[in-house]
Order: sequence, then C-alpha cells, then structure tokens
Amino acid sequence: MRIPEHVGIIPDGNRRWALQKGLNKEDGYERGISPGMSLFHTCQKLGIKEMSFYGFTADNTKRPSVQRLAFTKACVAAVKVLSEENASLLVVGNTDSAMFPKELLPYTTRRDFGKGGMKINFLVNYSWEWDLGLKNGMIGPKLGTADVSRVDLVIRWGGRRRLSGFLPVQSVYSDFYVVDDYWPDFSPRHVEEAISWYSRQDVTLGG
Amino acid sequence: MRIPEHVGIIPDGNRRWALQKGLNKEDGYERGISPGMSLFHTCQKLGIKEMSFYGFTADNTKRPSVQRLAFTKACVAAVKVLSEENASLLVVGNTDSAMFPKELLPYTTRRDFGKGGMKINFLVNYSWEWDLGLKNGMIGPKLGTADVSRVDLVIRWGGRRRLSGFLPVQSVYSDFYVVDDYWPDFSPRHVEEAISWYSRQDVTLGG
Repeated sequence: MRIPEHVGIIPDGNRRWALQKGLNKEDGYERGISPGMSLFHTCQKLGIKEMSFYGFTADNTKRPSVQRLAFTKACVAAVKVLSEENASLLVVGNTDSAMFPKELLPYTTRRDFGKGGMKINFLVNYSWEWDLGLKNGMIGPKLGTADVSRVDLVIRWGGRRRLSGFLPVQSVYSDFYVVDDYWPDFSPRHVEEAISWYSRQDVTLGG
Repeated sequence: MRIPEHVGIIPDGNRRWALQKGLNKEDGYERGISPGMSLFHTCQKLGIKEMSFYGFTADNTKRPSVQRLAFTKACVAAVKVLSEENASLLVVGNTDSAMFPKELLPYTTRRDFGKGGMKINFLVNYSWEWDLGLKNGMIGPKLGTADVSRVDLVIRWGGRRRLSGFLPVQSVYSDFYVVDDYWPDFSPRHVEEAISWYSRQDVTLGG
C-alpha cells in the first residue's frame, strides 16, 4: 500500500457531537483529546512520517469565550500529552496575539521528545493570512490574481479529490464538489447537483 | 436555493476520456470547448456572478508538446468563443513565459464583451507559485509555516468538504478525504479507509 508521508488532519464536528449528545457545544472539545492520541498511534503504526493537526485558528477565537477557553484548554492538554510520546513536535501559529496560549510558547521551536520520530505540526491560533503574510481577511493586492475574488464552490470533473494548485488563496473556504464523469461528458445536471449540494452546506468562513 | 456567487471549475479528465474512446490523449482537449460553453450558459441562467476556469497551468506545459499544443489551442479557442458572449472577461496567468499564448495577451486586462455580465477568470499558464510570488516548487521560506512540508493527504472529520484555511500552500496538491463521523467518534478504521483510498489515487503533482 502507498502510504502518505505527510497527513493533514481537520478534526471537525466536536460541537455538533456535543449537541447530539445533549451536552453544551463547548463540552465537545475535551472529548477530542483521546481521539487525537488514538490517531497518533494509528499513524505511528502505519509509518506515517509527518502529521499536521488543525488545533484552532485565529478565526475560531471569535467564537463565544466559553468555547474559546474550552478548545484552547484541549489543545494545551493535547500538546502536553504528545510531548510524553516519541515525536518531533512543533506548535505553529500566530504567537503575537493574546489568543496564543502562553503555556505553548516553549513548543514553538521544533524539539524531539522521547526518541523523536514522527514530525508533528500542531496548528494553534493559526491563520492562512498570517501564514502567507497577507492582510486580515483580504485577498492580497500582491497576488497575481488580485482581481479574482473568493471562490464559494469549486466543482471538479474527472473524479479526483484535490485542488491541483487551483487558486489556493481564493479557495481557502470553498466547498469542494467532485463529479466523477470526465469533463468532455459534461452535463448541466452536474452543475445543478453541485449547487443543490452546496445550498445544503452551512457558511462559516472559518468562524 | 442558495446560489454561490463565484464558482471555480476544474475541468479534468480530457485525456482519460480520449483514451476510453480509443483516441489519442491530446484529442480530448478540443472536446472540452463545447462543455465549457454549456457550463457558461448553465451558470448564466442560474445567476452565478463569477466563474474561474482552470484552463492550463505552468505544470501542465511540461507534458509532451503534442498535448501542450492541443490544450493551448483549445484554451485560445474557448476564450475567443467566450468573447462573443455577454461577459466580463479576464485571462490571468504568467505572461512572462513562452508558454503563454500570444493570441491571449489582449485579454489579460479585464474587459466587458457584449453587454458585460458574469465575471470570467480564465486561468492560462497559471501557477500557484507565480500567484503567491513564491519560488518555483518550493515551500516559501517566508511562510509562517516554512518548517511544514507538502501535505499528501488531508483527512477531515465531520462531513464538510472544505479546507477552512488549512495550510493553503502545503495543501495545493493534497488528496482530500472526508469522514462523515464527528471527530469525537474517531476510529482507527477511518484512517485505514482514508489511506486505502489514497493508495488508489495517482500522483501527478500538477503535471
């Protein structure tokens, strides 16, 4: 089996899980730590060399403070538990902000724990604008495609589930719909189905 | 119905379509023009305000020249046909390269054709590195996440089909796998299924 070297993890659905269980939204986050450790051990066994884990984003910190405190606490706990494993650990995100937990500052330079091993990039108070050096929420005026606005829906024909370098900045929040048919077999029905699916998705813009 | 304002189009599968029909790979491209016009009219009727169409990339130009000539010709023809419609048309991509077709230089400033209308961004000799001002194929040393390498596979829990700002540069070529279960219901089986799916995908890195 072809094993990916580097796996990115977006651990979404904590709040919806909590609501479904009759709990408060913020109660979902602490239930995300143990799955994270299970994931780590699964990837370790499979021989995966690097993992990037989406802890929380600068966008997420605009949520009610009871949620913010809960996911921050869960991320701090997760990093501490990971530091007791064999791993090469880096916490990465915008540290020039009060939203970055001080307890994690010692982890913002990559360090080996235990015997070292899997590279783990744990994203904390991360934002794509920060990452790219762009201004807050703006399509960057320095982009080659400065005149192209944010894309709401990407439709790809031919069955592959990847962006292949398509407008990375404009697509950060896009919903992604894949048509299995090849492009020359285009039918208006494909677009209608894509939009019908899109209209059932929520709009969060990372919030 | 909630209609997206801006739709991105990745019209993939022309070569696989041609092979399936017993044709040469390059014969697929000219069969992509008429679907493009059908798409344009479908989106026009639906009231979509902006469309970005992935014509060809700088990566694509590394293919055999018979293919390169065929997709270049198809893109030039598509832009000319679009310029006979009501549209606000922009061709955007790296014009500082012999791979950019000279016939399309007049379209690299946005212009209204007919009565104007839908904004169309037609990507020609586009590359994400060019767009972001990064060096060829390199993860940019100026990124906040310069120490994070290219991601091969993104796994998202919770059913949503979007990146939500996750590592846009490292994810340009990532395969994207969505688990419908919420994150707290994580099971190692999810990862195993994701990797089994991943190992059946080809690796093109945009080529």
